[in-house]
This record gives sequence, structure tokens and C-alpha cells, in this order.
Amino acid sequence: MYRIIVSLLLILCPLLIKANDGYKLWLQYLPFENKAVADYYRDYLENITLIGESPTHGVIRKELEIAIDSFLEGKTKSNISSKNINSGLIWIAGTVDLPQNIKASLAERIKEIKEEGYLIKYFQGKIFVTANSDIGLLYGTFALLKNIQTRKSLEDLDILENPKIQLRLLNHWDNLNRTVERGYAGFSIWNWHRLPGHIDQQYIDYARANASIGINGTSVTNVNANALVLTPEYLEKAAALADVFRPYGIKIYLTARFNAPMMLDSLPTADPLDPLVQAWWMKKAKEIYSYIPDFGGFLVKADSEGQPGPHNYGRTQADGANTLADAVKPFGGIVMWRAFVYNEKTPTDRIKQAYDEFKPLDGKFRDNVIVQVKNGPLDFQPREPFHPLFGAMPNTPLMMEFQITKEYLGQETHWVNLSTSWKEILQSDTYAKGHGSTVSKVLDGSLHNYQLTGMAGVSNIGTDRNWTGHHTGQADWYAFGKLAWNPESNIDGITEDWLKMTFTLDPSFVNAAKKIALNSYETLVNYMTPLGLHHIMARSHHWGPGPWVTGGGRDDWTATYYHKASKDSIGFDRTEKGSNAIGQYAQEWNTVWGNPETIPMEYLLWFHRIPWNKKLSTGNTLWDEMALRYQKGVEGARWMQKEWTKLEGKIDQERFDHISSFLNIQVKEAEWWRDACLLYFGQFSKMALPAGVENPKHELQYYLNFKRNFVPGI
Amino acid sequence: MYRIIVSLLLILCPLLIKANDGYKLWLQYLPFENKAVADYYRDYLENITLIGESPTHGVIRKELEIAIDSFLEGKTKSNISSKNINSGLIWIAGTVDLPQNIKASLAERIKEIKEEGYLIKYFQGKIFVTANSDIGLLYGTFALLKNIQTRKSLEDLDILENPKIQLRLLNHWDNLNRTVERGYAGFSIWNWHRLPGHIDQQYIDYARANASIGINGTSVTNVNANALVLTPEYLEKAAALADVFRPYGIKIYLTARFNAPMMLDSLPTADPLDPLVQAWWMKKAKEIYSYIPDFGGFLVKADSEGQPGPHNYGRTQADGANTLADAVKPFGGIVMWRAFVYNEKTPTDRIKQAYDEFKPLDGKFRDNVIVQVKNGPLDFQPREPFHPLFGAMPNTPLMMEFQITKEYLGQETHWVNLSTSWKEILQSDTYAKGHGSTVSKVLDGSLHNYQLTGMAGVSNIGTDRNWTGHHTGQADWYAFGKLAWNPESNIDGITEDWLKMTFTLDPSFVNAAKKIALNSYETLVNYMTPLGLHHIMARSHHWGPGPWVTGGGRDDWTATYYHKASKDSIGFDRTEKGSNAIGQYAQEWNTVWGNPETIPMEYLLWFHRIPWNKKLSTGNTLWDEMALRYQKGVEGARWMQKEWTKLEGKIDQERFDHISSFLNIQVKEAEWWRDACLLYFGQFSKMALPAGVENPKHELQYYLNFKRNFVPGI
Repeated sequence: MYRIIVSLLLILCPLLIKANDGYKLWLQYLPFENKAVADYYRDYLENITLIGESPTHGVIRKELEIAIDSFLEGKTKSNISSKNINSGLIWIAGTVDLPQNIKASLAERIKEIKEEGYLIKYFQGKIFVTANSDIGLLYGTFALLKNIQTRKSLEDLDILENPKIQLRLLNHWDNLNRTVERGYAGFSIWNWHRLPGHIDQQYIDYARANASIGINGTSVTNVNANALVLTPEYLEKAAALADVFRPYGIKIYLTARFNAPMMLDSLPTADPLDPLVQAWWMKKAKEIYSYIPDFGGFLVKADSEGQPGPHNYGRTQADGANTLADAVKPFGGIVMWRAFVYNEKTPTDRIKQAYDEFKPLDGKFRDNVIVQVKNGPLDFQPREPFHPLFGAMPNTPLMMEFQITKEYLGQETHWVNLSTSWKEILQSDTYAKGHGSTVSKVLDGSLHNYQLTGMAGVSNIGTDRNWTGHHTGQADWYAFGKLAWNPESNIDGITEDWLKMTFTLDPSFVNAAKKIALNSYETLVNYMTPLGLHHIMARSHHWGPGPWVTGGGRDDWTATYYHKASKDSIGFDRTEKGSNAIGQYAQEWNTVWGNPETIPMEYLLWFHRIPWNKKLSTGNTLWDEMALRYQKGVEGARWMQKEWTKLEGKIDQERFDHISSFLNIQVKEAEWWRDACLLYFGQFSKMALPAGVENPKHELQYYLNFKRNFVPGI
Repeated sequence: MYRIIVSLLLILCPLLIKANDGYKLWLQYLPFENKAVADYYRDYLENITLIGESPTHGVIRKELEIAIDSFLEGKTKSNISSKNINSGLIWIAGTVDLPQNIKASLAERIKEIKEEGYLIKYFQGKIFVTANSDIGLLYGTFALLKNIQTRKSLEDLDILENPKIQLRLLNHWDNLNRTVERGYAGFSIWNWHRLPGHIDQQYIDYARANASIGINGTSVTNVNANALVLTPEYLEKAAALADVFRPYGIKIYLTARFNAPMMLDSLPTADPLDPLVQAWWMKKAKEIYSYIPDFGGFLVKADSEGQPGPHNYGRTQADGANTLADAVKPFGGIVMWRAFVYNEKTPTDRIKQAYDEFKPLDGKFRDNVIVQVKNGPLDFQPREPFHPLFGAMPNTPLMMEFQITKEYLGQETHWVNLSTSWKEILQSDTYAKGHGSTVSKVLDGSLHNYQLTGMAGVSNIGTDRNWTGHHTGQADWYAFGKLAWNPESNIDGITEDWLKMTFTLDPSFVNAAKKIALNSYETLVNYMTPLGLHHIMARSHHWGPGPWVTGGGRDDWTATYYHKASKDSIGFDRTEKGSNAIGQYAQEWNTVWGNPETIPMEYLLWFHRIPWNKKLSTGNTLWDEMALRYQKGVEGARWMQKEWTKLEGKIDQERFDHISSFLNIQVKEAEWWRDACLLYFGQFSKMALPAGVENPKHELQYYLNFKRNFVPGI
């Protein structure tokens, strides 16, 4: 009776939808919405047997307690037994700890469980969560909890999961002074000054969140690296973080500045083939492992954008990577060597340079090196074709680098569902071994039999109370983990699960919000860079449009280098007649993309120069098509805003308002992009805006003069 | 029955003491601890009548809803009537809105209520909260809620409160790039880039917290000022903040860079007597008020530490202040002009310079200027005597500047209850008009009949999840507000209330934690700067000891300038025979402080040079006394740690652990201070450590070499 009254009050009184700052991410463990639901799960939750002892078992127990307390609103006492009690309805136990009869019955399935995998199986009236490792057991526990979070029937459970990719990492571009390069959610969560003395609760919650989505490594410092992080002052601090992360199955990695031997110990050179340099790295590795016995290894950005590297000594990227790899090899460490190498002095089309540099080195890297390749050949633009290195390095493991932080995609205030874009890349066919040779199969190792596999995501995490600036930025973090675990995952399901776990189970909210999310990526591409436009953002901070950016010393950092707009045409000819970047792809793509009549329109100006008045397959001239797509993008943003407005009252007001205000900004900035780009390009086309495209709000000069100080992320 | 079971579970299950990150500050509105307590208050809380309509009334209603929801754990529907309903047990209504019979009965009391004041009166079975202004009503509501938070009996309520000080301000030293000068709680909460489009919930919670303690103004930018904040780009953003703060009775102030006319509009001069400059400020003021109609005014740091000022043009501080004051005067604005003016080229003892500069200007400032004076004549040292300007400017309003952020007091990781120190200053007797002429009476205007009164606190607020880095830093923010409202407030009561509202009502916790808090200040002074030592911290970042700091271009920024340790003696002779800084104080202090036999020992080395082997009144030599006090400080910190450990389980584990880890750091740093200072000074005294003082852990060289990178706050 009491509960019914309370329930009625809950329905009657919107105030009681509690304020929520989003800190709990997708681990809200939302209270059961009615008595029937609560009763159903309570039976299970009140009868859990957890067998085994380890720090990770402690984490499992704690997580169950948090979840139970939250699901049941503190109205039950969690009673997790660590004894072999027959009454347990949920059994969480390593395969070695399972009762013999269960083990025998499940033997066939158990054989399929790999190192980090798990099995969840409803069997003989009980749910068994089992694994070969402690961390597998933790992953299984989170998977079970996710099924409860999404209110699945537990009697159907029969889930066997092994990660398809070994290294599932976040890359933080966090500086030691706590600024975050390309970070838009405040500042770095790593408070180095207070470490190792103070372990912030946020470090623990960070590890929980990552473990819940299968992330098993984190590189905590900027790839534009400061050598200081390799000194005892910082190693002691990094070790304290490693201690926090360890029970959650997360290894710590550090970025290594290539000339660290010179900076830290005044060596005369950082030549990777110099024996003194090699000895330095050996000694440094040994020192690091004395602080962090399970140190993951190094992430290196070399010979790019001012970072020192093997080029400085006439050496190859393989020479550089191998010296570091040899140093960490005795301790089981790896080197992630970034392929993002380009130079303004190389006359080649910038997007060709990584391929030109790395392809000849295929097979020349140590077996504990993995080359980290950005999704596309330029730099995390709203839309790029997949990077041509994928499929082109059969003898060198390649890992993916996605950017979760939205440097070029509206930064923190735009709602853009990144998994849509990632899926597009992962499903791209490299044709390396014929049709079906997807990027996804390169990454999971199946295509080339890679012995090392990996996926990294450049973190969007900062000190903002909701971690990611935009509440929906959490979805990108979540989806990254899910796709790193299995690049074939269904993003519709990922998005739906995330919404349910994060906001509410109310299907009227979930369905509408999912629709907004899944339309958001194409909308953004339309209002920013339709038809294959790229690198037309503002200089330096990259916030807002800047198609007029030109000059300034580095041509490859301008917009005009890429769009090459003239009075006749626009676009970068990358066919055989141009830079022939297209030649880095399989013949199948040459055929399709090489012809402006057959290339999908989203890549048109990436590969071709097209006259303004050229009639496209849509029946529109290029100019009209561009203008209409910009307009469509703006209308898409307005649609997102309108649909969101309808959801007021279905979730807590705090997050609703937060997202609403960001959608207002998004609409304004979509208009800004459209107006600035059309005014700028219109100078060249000299063509009128087609019907249906709104007139710009200001003159071009307004946009050229528009300037804001202290834009974040640099 | 159900409630009893729940209560039992709550007792049995420590897990159910929820994690708490401290974000809610002292506005936790902790749930009633048992049924009897809940029943007692529920009668009142379910029968509230709130009369009137205004944005501030909206704030009152919302705050009541938050409080009721939290006190009663969402188990009641708040039902705040806005009609004149007889059943109301709590009446919140402006004096004009009170029922006639009530108004007549309370007429005598009502007469005493001033602009921001309020009356809470239990009368004829109801509680009346009334005021002459909306903001008075909000203050009264917070006061009523505080009585419920501290579980006071409501039938005794008869409170009439008027603030004793008009301007009660926070000063944020926040830069536009979100770094915070001398900030140790992360970064600035002002996300200028997202303003005005996004109003963060934290801005609202900031306003709530400040209003709850009577703060009515905030200067949001660093006194080391950036002129950009006076441009439309930032005025639009500041206006958005002002809109948030307005219903909470909080005015926004901006720091004005004195040469802004040159920086923003290329004027050839910023000479305050130049008509073009005066016209510029007039126009700028008009522009600011067009964005923010109730803009509070300017806070100015001039001619100090590199800031431009009237000295650059041979003008006085009054000339500078008056030009700005004339500009804001037509709009009701004021100028807060800092007295923290000193120059390394002035040969005088640095601590004398502000007095020398300002005392002759007494009476020469416009009536909308108030001179803002730091508590002591140096710079927020752990202990200083009160600033000699207090009592010395009868014809110029002076306001207090306290530093809530702990630049020199262990920064964020030390627990130091600052109100203890502030009380010491406020109760200091200036003897300006004979005995009893306390600083407090200078500030409240009663001593000199000031028409403007004020108190500013340099904010300790940042992006840390608990706002202030150390959870107990919240107490300093809270106490500052309470002392600004009434400098005579009892700090024992302030501390106790804060503990109850913030953590728990459990008296075993409250009493023990209060004891720690109230002992903490003297403990810190002992391990940092006993016996009147000052300015012996590390250079630049001011973190940790640096008695050896010397040279470097500015003598007045070294330690040796202040302690002047030699093989014979230590201390700064500020008597008549020395710098005669003592001459800036009343004759009564000259007599007491001028004699090393009669001066309280805490000021000994501030005013005197004393031989190392001089026997003090304690029976110890100066050296032994110093060493013993350092030791006592360390032991005090250990005692704090030990006492805190005993409190585990009485509050949530998250905040308990957080404070525990900071106490560990505090103890280590107390030892660091003791060891470093005694080793350094021991070089001069050549005397052995007395019995009871532990040997330093390292050699002096270790401390001299100790260096950490990226220390926060600069």
C-alpha cells in the first residue's frame, strides 16, 4: 500500500524526477519502475553467490552492491555470498570454481571462452556467469547488469562473448598542466599534483566505466608529448593510477617523446640506431617497469607537426619504433606507433604521405609494434574515406585511431552520434583480399592474421560534471568501447542500450532520442562539409567555418589547399590526372571513385574538381546541390531541436535543459556554417542561391571578422 | 512497519550511507533521521504558504521543493500554496503581503527590518517569515531551512536579522582561459566559451549557495585583469551570468584593467585626468549598463605587481579611482579600489607602503569608492597583524579582503579552518577611537560612520566536484559569508552548523570534527610560520617551504628580505630602530608590540630581530622555541589525522576517504615544512635541536633540490 502511494506520488510529481548531472554515465542503474519489475529481479539480486578472491572480485562485489542499492532504491540489503550456497540464483564464478556438475554440463561452451571472454548462461534455474580470468568475470558481471539495466528477461540468457580486438584503448591528449589538446569538456581529470597522495573517486569511476564497456588500456598523456612524464616524479604518479586501474583490467600506457634521451639526460642524439640511445631506452623501460610492473607500453607520435622523430636522424619509422619496442619487449610491453606522419616540406598531397611512408616498411616492425592509423587519410574530418593503409600492410599489425573528442565535428556543443561515422569506416571494403575485406576484418586480425590487434579512441573526457561536455558525448565513449570489443556490433542496439541505461526506459523517449541520434551524423556533414568538402574549418582552434583560411606558412594547414575553389570549379583532383591519391586504394575503388559520375556524392570533391555549373545525378548543378545540402543540414539540426523539445518531462530537467541549450547552439552554428560557406564559395561560383535555401543573416565580411578569444582545446 | 524495517536496514548496512561527492555543499538537506523527527517537521513542511510573485519568489519556491524532497526523501508531495490559506503553518510573505492582523501584531519588530533583513517569528501557532524585499524573504527562507537542517525547535523561532555589512562579495581570480590564479580546486567554473548560449546548472547552484549565506556580489574575473572582459564579446556573456544571479540578489562586478582605453581603443594614454580617458570610461560604463542594468561596478588592482595604474601618469590612487567612479556613478555603480599597492623600487619596508600611499588620501575619494584592504599589511600570510589602514582612514570607506583560497596556507590539501584566523583579525583592536575600536567596527561602518561597507573573500571555488578541493574548504566559503553578514558571528557556531548541514547530525561526529577544525589554524601556523615568521614559502607557486629563497630581481619577493636570518639573530626589526612599521599602529600597540618582552609571541619576529640564544618568556631560547613550535605543528597535524580516523563510518566513505588522503598529505607536508625550515635556519643558529624535536628525514640539500612541475595556481 505504502509503495503504491509512493508510486502514485512519483507519477504525480515531476519534481521527483531527480536532478541528474550525468556523472553516473550509463551506470545509473535506474530504479525498477514498478513493483512487478522489482519483484522479478529482486529474487535474483538477493541471491547472488560470488566465488573467489582477488582485487577484481572485490570490484565485482562492490559493483553489484552499487547496482542493487540503486535498482532497489536502498530498500534491500545486498547479500552476496562468497560460499558455495545452493540457494544462489546468480552464480558468478571462474570456470575453475564452478561446481563439477555444472562445469561438466557446460563444458562445450566453456571451451569457447577465451582470455577476456565470459559466458552467461541460464541453466537449471540459475544464472551462471563464468570466465577463465578475473577480468572476464568482471566483464560478465557488467554484461549481466546491462541485461538488468535494459530489463531483459534473465531466463533467456545464453551469451558467450570474447573480444574481437585485443587492445582497446583510450588515448588522452592531456597535458601535464591539465589542459587537454582538442579537449572540450573542461580540463584533464588527471590531477598530477595531488598524485600519488590523493586517489580521486573519479579515477575509480573512470575505471569502472571503462571496464563496463571492455576498455582495457589507457594512454593518459598527450601524443604531443612532454618527456617529463618519463621521470620518477611522474612515474610515481602514473604508478598510483595504474594501481587504481589494475583490478579493472586496464593497463596504463604513456606517450614517449622521441627525443627524451636528449631532454632528460642530455644525450647528444636521439638517433634510434645509436647504441647509447638504445641503452637509454632499455634502462628507462626497466625503470618504468620498476614502478609499474604491468606497464602497457608506449604510444608515439613522431616526425609530425613538430614532434621529434627518427627522420631527424635519417632513420625510418620502423627504426624508431623498433628501438622503443626492443626496450619494452623483455617486460611484455608494446609500442603503438602512429602513422599520422606528414610534413609541409614533402611536396606530395598531404593525404598520401602516411601511405607513402609506411607501406614500404610493411613487415619491418618488431612483433610488439602496432601501427596506429587514423580512420581516414587526412585528420578526423567530418567525413573521409577510409585510410588507404588499411588492407595495405598485411605484414604489420595496424590498429584504428578514432577521435571520440569532436575536434572537427562541432566540438562539445553539437549532438553527433559518432558511431554512425565509425561504422561507415569499419564496414568499408578495402578489397585487399577481394570483396568483403572490410576495415573491420583488418582490425580484428582475421584478414591478415595479425598477432596484435587494437583500436584506440581519442578521449572526450574532461572535468565537466558529465565527463564529456555534451551529455550525448557519453554515447560516443560508450559506443567506442562496444565497437572496440566487436567492430561488427550493431550501432542501433548500442544507441538504444545507452539511452535506456543513461536516461530512462520509457520507450517514447528512447525511440525518439535514438532517431535524433542516428540522424545526427549525416545532418552535421551536410551543414559542415557536404559533397566531400574537407578541412574548411577555422584555423588553429578549428571551431566554426573557415573556408577562407589561406597562407600562414603551412599550406597543408589551410582550407584553400583542400577545396581549391576557383571561378570555374571546386575540389581536389586526386585522380590519376591529379595527385593520384586514389591510386593508394584498390582497383575496385579506382573504378568507382575515379569517375565523377559513379562516385558516391559524399566523396565527390574529395577526389574530383567539379565545375560549379556541372549537372549532378540529382539533377542539380554542383552549386545548387551544395547549397541545398547546407540548407538540409540546418533543417536537420532544427528538426533535432524540435524533436528534443517534445521530450521534456520524460527525463530529469537538468539533463533535458543542458541538451536543449546545446541544441540551440548547434542550430545557430549550423546556420553559421551554411551562411559562411555559401557566402564564401558564392564569390567563386557567382551563382544565386537556389529556391529553398535561406539568405545568409550577415554579409561575408561579418564571418571573416568573427573572432572569439580563448576558444578551448588548444 | 515498512519504515522501521528500512530504518533497521539503514543501520545494519553501511553501504547505504550513499556516496557523496560534496557538490551539494551545506545544502545537503539531510533526510530526517527518524520517524519522530520527520513527523515533527512534516506538519510544517506540508503546509507552506508563499505569497507574492517575482523571480526571487520562484527561487524560494524551488528551494523549498528541493529541501522538502530531500528532508523527506521524496516521500511527500510538496504543496506550497500561493494563496492566503489559513491552514498554512509556515507563512513566507513580504511585510506588505502579511495579513493585516499579523502585520499589526508584529509592527514593532517589522520596523526593525532593513532592506536585506528578515524576521522569522513563531506566532499564533504559525511561523512567519517576512521581509521588506524579495531578497530578504529569500534570506529568511534559507535561515528557516537552516533551522530545520540543524534540527532546531521551530516553536522557539524569533529571529530578526539585518546584515551588518552592505557589500558581501566573492572575488574570483579567474582568467578568461579558465585558469585560476592561486586557485587550487581545478579550473574556473566560468565557461566563457559556452556563454551566453549555455547556462550551466553549476551557475545556478553557485548562486543558491551564495544566497544561502548572504553573499550579494561577485567579481568574476582576475584582479590581474584582462581588458577583453570589457568588450561586447564578454559583456554579453557576463550579462548572461548576471541574469542567473539576479533572482538570488547577487550583483556581478568586473575587474577593470587600468589601461583598457589604450588596449581596447588605442587611446594614447590612460591618464585618469585626461578628458579623453574620462570620456572613454563614461562611454564604457554606459555600454556595460546597457548589457547589465544592475552592474555592480569595478574592482581594480592598480600600480601593483605589474598592473598599470595612475602612477604611470604621476597621478594618485584617488585620481585613478575617482575617474572610474565618476563613470559608473550615474548608473549606481561603485568602485572597489585595492590598497594592495607596493613597488620594489620604493625603498620602504614593503608592508608600510600601502599605508604610506593611502593614508594621505583619506577623504579624497568619491563617495562611490571603497578601498579594499587585505587583512594584513603583507599578503595573506598564515598569520599577520591586522592591516594598519584599518582605523586610519576615517573619511574613506574601507572594506576587508580576506583570502578564502589558501595560497599560503597549504593550498587545497591542508585542513585549516580560516574563520579562526579571520576572527582574530576582526576582533583586533585598532584603538582608532580608544579601546574597543575593533576592525569589525571599522568594517561595519559604526566606528567612522562609513556610508559604504564591504567585505570581499578571494574565492576558493573551482571545477573540482566538491567546488573547493578540500571538502573543508567549503567551510571557509560558508564562514566567509556568515562573517560578511555579521563580523561578530560566533565561529564555534558557524563551524558546528556547517558540519551538521554538510555531513551528519551525529553529535559524536560533529563534536570531534569541530575540535579538529578549531585547532587546525594554530597547528598550521606552528608548522609553517611560528613566532611571527612570514613569507618563507617557495617562490612563484608558493607551495611548500622556501626560507632560502633569495635574489632574482625583486628583493621583496624573497624570503631572506623578511626573515633576515644571520648567525646571531633572525627577524625583521620594525620598531622605531628598524623600519618603524610599528609606527603605523596606535600608540597602544607601539607599547605592547614594540617591546620584545611584552609582544605576544606570535608576532615576535614580525616586529623584532631576536638573537637565537635569547631566552623567551617560555623559558626556552628562541631557537628551541622555534623548533618546538615546528614540532608541535607536526604533532598537531598528526593529531588531526588520528582524530579523523576515528570518525570512519560516521559519514559517507567517499568524503571520509577524500579527507583522509588529504590529511596524509598534510602530515607529510607539515614534516616537510618543519624539516626544511629547521635545517635551513639551523645553518645560522648552529644550535642543536632540543629534546622532543624529531630529526629531519633528509639533508638540507634534498629540500633545496626538491622541485615539482606544473604546481597549480599560477
